[in-house]
Order: sequence, then C-alpha cells, then structure tokens
Amino acid sequence: MEVLDTSEAMTAWAAARRGRVRVGLVPTMGFLHAGHASLLDLLRPRCEALVVSIYVNPLQFGAGEDLDRYPRDLEGDLALCAAHGADAVFTPASLYPPGHATRVRVEGLTEGLCGASRPVHFEGVTTVVARLFGLVGCDVAAFGEKDFQQLQVLRRMTADLALPVEIVGGPIVRDADGLALSSRNAYLDPAQRARALSLSRALRALQDAVVAGEHDVAALTALGRGLLDVDALDYLEVVDPQTLRPVARVDGEARALVAASLGATRLIDNVALAAAP
Amino acid sequence: MEVLDTSEAMTAWAAARRGRVRVGLVPTMGFLHAGHASLLDLLRPRCEALVVSIYVNPLQFGAGEDLDRYPRDLEGDLALCAAHGADAVFTPASLYPPGHATRVRVEGLTEGLCGASRPVHFEGVTTVVARLFGLVGCDVAAFGEKDFQQLQVLRRMTADLALPVEIVGGPIVRDADGLALSSRNAYLDPAQRARALSLSRALRALQDAVVAGEHDVAALTALGRGLLDVDALDYLEVVDPQTLRPVARVDGEARALVAASLGATRLIDNVALAAAP
Repeated sequence: MEVLDTSEAMTAWAAARRGRVRVGLVPTMGFLHAGHASLLDLLRPRCEALVVSIYVNPLQFGAGEDLDRYPRDLEGDLALCAAHGADAVFTPASLYPPGHATRVRVEGLTEGLCGASRPVHFEGVTTVVARLFGLVGCDVAAFGEKDFQQLQVLRRMTADLALPVEIVGGPIVRDADGLALSSRNAYLDPAQRARALSLSRALRALQDAVVAGEHDVAALTALGRGLLDVDALDYLEVVDPQTLRPVARVDGEARALVAASLGATRLIDNVALAAAP
Repeated sequence: MEVLDTSEAMTAWAAARRGRVRVGLVPTMGFLHAGHASLLDLLRPRCEALVVSIYVNPLQFGAGEDLDRYPRDLEGDLALCAAHGADAVFTPASLYPPGHATRVRVEGLTEGLCGASRPVHFEGVTTVVARLFGLVGCDVAAFGEKDFQQLQVLRRMTADLALPVEIVGGPIVRDADGLALSSRNAYLDPAQRARALSLSRALRALQDAVVAGEHDVAALTALGRGLLDVDALDYLEVVDPQTLRPVARVDGEARALVAASLGATRLIDNVALAAAP
C-alpha cells in the first residue's frame, strides 16, 4: 500500500493509471471506523486500484465548529486501509495549491436540513470532493448514506460537472445498540452516548409507524420528537429523497433525517421510509 | 468530422477515447472567425482528436446583455471547423441536465476588470467550461488571449480543481487595421467600426510609451484615454498579468486591458507591456 502525502504525488499516481486502470476512491476525514471500512469493502470488487483520502478539510467547517479538535489517528487509519485492501492512501498535509480561489457549490439541495444551520458546509464539501476527483482521477467513489444530504449533493455535482465518476452510496453501519457510527461519537461521554441512542430509536419508531399505516408527516415527527432525548434538536424532517424537500405525507419513498446535539457534539442519522403498497 | 448534438453523444464519444487518445478542445459560442481558427491550428498538432464546442451559454450573460441577439452561423462554423482539422463538433441545443444546480466560481481574479461590470459573467464561464471539460474529457484546451481575464480565471479553476487539462492561450488575431477579431464586431456599423480602431491604437500607444521609458501607470492610462474614441469607457487598466491587480508602475511584465462600448456593442482588447530591461 502506497502512502502519498502531496498533491503532486497523487497526480503522478493518477496520471499513470487514468484510462487504463479502474480507480476507486473513498474520501474521508480520517479516524476511520467500520462505516468507512464498509465503503472500502463496497468498492474493492468494483475497481482495480482503491484509494482512500484522509484530509480534514477546513473549508467544510464553520466558525465555532470542531475543526480544531476533530479526532485523528493516522496509524490506526493506515492499518484499517491496509486490512481492507487499499492500494494507496492519500494523506496531504495541505490539499489546496497556493492562491487557491475556486469554489464549487450546489444550489437547492444544500439549502435545507444541515445546510440551514451549517451555511458554508456543503460548499466546502463540494469544493474538496471536486478537487479530490480531479487529483485521484477516480472512476468510482463511495460515500456513506449516514451523510444522506451530502450524498445527494455530490450526486448532483457529479452529474452537473459531467464528471466521469460513478457515485456509490453505502448503507449506514450501526453499533449493536443502533447508534450510527461516526468519528464524532468519540466526543460522547457514557451518559451522552446512552442518550444518543434516542436518535436511531426515534427514526426506527417512524419506520414502524409508517409500516403500521401512519402516513401523516406532522403526526410522525411529533412521535419522533417525543422519543428524542437530546440537548438541542436541529431538525427532524421527512423529505423526498431526490429533492430533499419536505413532504406532508409519506406516499411511496421518503427519508426521515435527524440532527441533534448532545453537549457540544452534533450527531446526524437517517432512515428510509416506505409506505406499504 | 462528427457532429454531436447531445451531452449523451458527447459523453459516449469521450468515453471511447479517455486515456487512450489525446483529446483537444476549443470551446466557443460559435460565429467563428480567424481567431477561433487560430486556436484550432494551435491545438491540431498537440492532440490526436480535436473537438470544437459551439454553445451560446446563457449563464454567462447578465440581464440586458446580448444573449438574445448573439450572432449565429452554424453552417459557416462547421465549414471552418472542417477546414481546420476538427474531428468532432459538439453543438448541443441545451447543455445542462434537468435540475442542474451546480456553480463553479473563482474568487479574486473575477472581481475587477470585466467582473466589476459583468457580475455573473465569470461564474457562468467557469460553470460551463468545467462541464465541457467533463463531457469532452479533453487533455488540452485552447482559449484566446483576447479574453485575457477569462484565460487567467480558467487557468486558476483548472489548477484548483486539479483537472487533467493543459490550458493553452492563443495570441490575439487582428484585422489588418488592428481591430481584434470578435464575433461581436458583426454588430458594428461602418462608423462604429472605424472608431473601434481607437482601442487597439490606444493600447499600441501604451506599448510604445513603455518602450520609450514611461513606466508610470497614471501617465500611461491618461495617454490611452486621450486616444480612445468610444461612447462609454468601462475600464482602461494596467495590471499584473498573474494576479490581475492594478499596478502603479510597469516594472517587468504587465498587461494593459481596455473595455468600452460603441453604441450597444461592448468590445474588449489587451496587450502585453514589457519595460525595457
């Protein structure tokens, strides 16, 4: 497994493979867990050369967010990448060239949900992912469904820029008790972690209620809010999975998404809802 | 020469060549002239497959600009492309997919000069060129130096997005009397065309003055303004060619750029200035 730590090294690696070898990419901010590993496992059979990028991207953090304390463990990350078949790990100390001035943004899809409370976040994500796609020259890239809005924003960006990259969404990986895996779970103390389970419990209750015949979104979100045990609820919404616009009733496919804080830690989770046919 | 008129056809053409054939692209808005032809001639020996795109991009026109009357001549354009060795012409009726929501912008370089009076222009240019690069899968692309700010903005975008595309700037092509070729010259009546020569004459006078030892930009622009015979001067500036920031003195490399209107027709031109060593 090669470790590439500059944009120049990554570019040279990519130039030797572009159009000849099918390249897969899993972009990450490091502190890798089984959710990331599942994305490597998902891409491994779909590509000939598998790259993991590890870069804590300042552009996607707002003022007062957790950029400075974001957890890091490069040694553990490299071991996980090697164990899951990565051919190269791209770990640049700085990713952007001197004088970098380009921004990529997606309108519409980025306005609600996490975009409402994190106004610079998605522009930072699309800007970094567009650059990573260019540097790595990937043919396929995987992103977790835990960041469902991000996944849909990146699908939109990829289509709009006509990037020759297939986007694969990986299912959420959860601990045995239901908590969606996140690098940020490391911030939680035991009491917070116990209360954090209320996110997945509330979402599961919405799923069950829909299956039981409750299709009214106001009733569903009232049910979910009653089950949440958090310090601050950012949103609990039911949306169309393509447009991410709120729906009033669950007719066919919908997605329930939640974002909430426990202490200073902001967590997100989501589930698919499907009305019985 | 193939004529491709949908994004899907262009994508299929590109997929068959990516990484195997060196592809060149000359992006245009059509109504081609000898300036465009010079860009095809520039790229022809530098690539194995040469593509010309013809698309009048609505995103780069502001309200009240000449989108609706922009001149068109597809038959003449195809003849010019064939005569200058194009392998494919991409002429989509619409370029953007349904739900298109992605914008690419370059900060800094786009703020002055044409960006000051055309606030949406460069975001439209970078958005369309990023998509064209993706669709065509080009390895090299040529842009005319007549749109000098555009050229520098696109170099910046290409570096920042790590696009595997070499950017080549083509020298300005002028009529025998000095007028820089532009599709918009078609708007000029004979009297306007005669007065339009004052742009290149003023720029040439700046060049001569610099060679003669005048390095003070205030003196140079005063000289140039005195020679301009236009209805409205947008700007006459001397800038650093890399940063596009105004300079006070010509020490080493500089660029003089002018934008002015004759009637409803806005024209631009520019020249390199070089202080004697």
